[in-house]
Amino acid sequence: MLYIVGLGLGNEKDITLRGLEAVQQCDKIIVEAYTSLLSFGLSSHGLITLEKLYGKPVILADRETVEEKADDILRAAADFDVAFLVVGDPFGYFGINVKVVHNASVMNAVRVCGLQLYHYGETVSIPFFTVTWRPDSFYEKIQKNRGLGLHTLLVRGKKQYEPPRYMSVNTAIEQLLEVEQNRGELAYSEDTMCVGFARLGSEDQKMVAGITRQLESVDFGAPLHCLVIVGKTHPVEEEMLDFYRTV
Amino acid sequence: MLYIVGLGLGNEKDITLRGLEAVQQCDKIIVEAYTSLLSFGLSSHGLITLEKLYGKPVILADRETVEEKADDILRAAADFDVAFLVVGDPFGYFGINVKVVHNASVMNAVRVCGLQLYHYGETVSIPFFTVTWRPDSFYEKIQKNRGLGLHTLLVRGKKQYEPPRYMSVNTAIEQLLEVEQNRGELAYSEDTMCVGFARLGSEDQKMVAGITRQLESVDFGAPLHCLVIVGKTHPVEEEMLDFYRTV
Repeated sequence: MLYIVGLGLGNEKDITLRGLEAVQQCDKIIVEAYTSLLSFGLSSHGLITLEKLYGKPVILADRETVEEKADDILRAAADFDVAFLVVGDPFGYFGINVKVVHNASVMNAVRVCGLQLYHYGETVSIPFFTVTWRPDSFYEKIQKNRGLGLHTLLVRGKKQYEPPRYMSVNTAIEQLLEVEQNRGELAYSEDTMCVGFARLGSEDQKMVAGITRQLESVDFGAPLHCLVIVGKTHPVEEEMLDFYRTV
Repeated sequence: MLYIVGLGLGNEKDITLRGLEAVQQCDKIIVEAYTSLLSFGLSSHGLITLEKLYGKPVILADRETVEEKADDILRAAADFDVAFLVVGDPFGYFGINVKVVHNASVMNAVRVCGLQLYHYGETVSIPFFTVTWRPDSFYEKIQKNRGLGLHTLLVRGKKQYEPPRYMSVNTAIEQLLEVEQNRGELAYSEDTMCVGFARLGSEDQKMVAGITRQLESVDFGAPLHCLVIVGKTHPVEEEMLDFYRTV
């Protein structure tokens, strides 16, 4: 049996009881470690924390293990109980016996800022620009969401096999404004209301609301960061945002 | 301190370790019980299961308690540690010391069907029709999502102070098709691909993909149900859906 278990957002205790029980009965425990990270990190220190909680050794899987050696994991799961742990909420695999243990993901945790989860449009991912690679396909998606009055969650996109780097709110806004300047279709501007988040779900999470120009210079500290571009707001949403506004 | 703790989707063990520790240190434990239910229910039997796990008495809060007596809960939290438990993922309150313990919600658990969470548009809620009250404002939202090729999650909307009733996939589709027939703008049809879900995240969850005409007669069993209207699909999404297709 393969158990795919969500670890949640913050620290090792964000696993559910159901997830913990599954992990503790497994013969092999693998942690996926390239698409995200727990707020306590997956340094050797972080791994030891997990091993202590689970009472078993934990194998760290990088992108190569997950994408190229997935067959090995699946083959092992035909004979043994294997737990595959992912940060946030897991997705489903198929074909062998699989149990998915759900957990919170950034996609619902952003609701803590008071914007109605129902009023989000398509989620948009934004890649790190390089000197020669500055794709702006996210622009149309934001434009469409804003055209409908919807909020947009921006998360960091990745190129294949790019080493893990974590995009700050500041870089995201810088790139957004560059693209707006080039396109000039006013999908958003320096005065568009946004909410920046850092370390969502952890003890020291930070959440600041303000226009892009203001947020560009806010220090959000350690990763992970994400950004919401605010759409049309209900008075109740406005009131909630006021709690998190920059001066 | 007020702790708002997400209980997750399925059974009492879907609480996180962080949530359980918070609950166990609280002086007063209140469970919100009108917007949703755990799959094991919140009957007196379900309550006893929670009380056994927490080692403490649990107070069941109906809509009146939550909406009209919220001040009492907040006042108590000024002096004591109060845990307010909600099914799924909690939202944030403000003004007094509050800790939110996140958990999974239906909004990410639907991803188990293989449709990319990034490609969902605005979530739509659909109310029970009565003889005289047949509002169709959800129609435009579905139309907009489908115009953008996005998937739509439909959940059950509620009128103020309506007694808890849980809408089946079948009723939802029946109402959708009635509205389409009246409006005739082809936002969707009898041949539109959908995925019906029952008891998401629980041991006996059921998931069936098919066109509306097919799903209308599938027996999904006990609540909670929800429905996804499929937008434009990627080949990988198609492949995943094939696993869940009706004959």
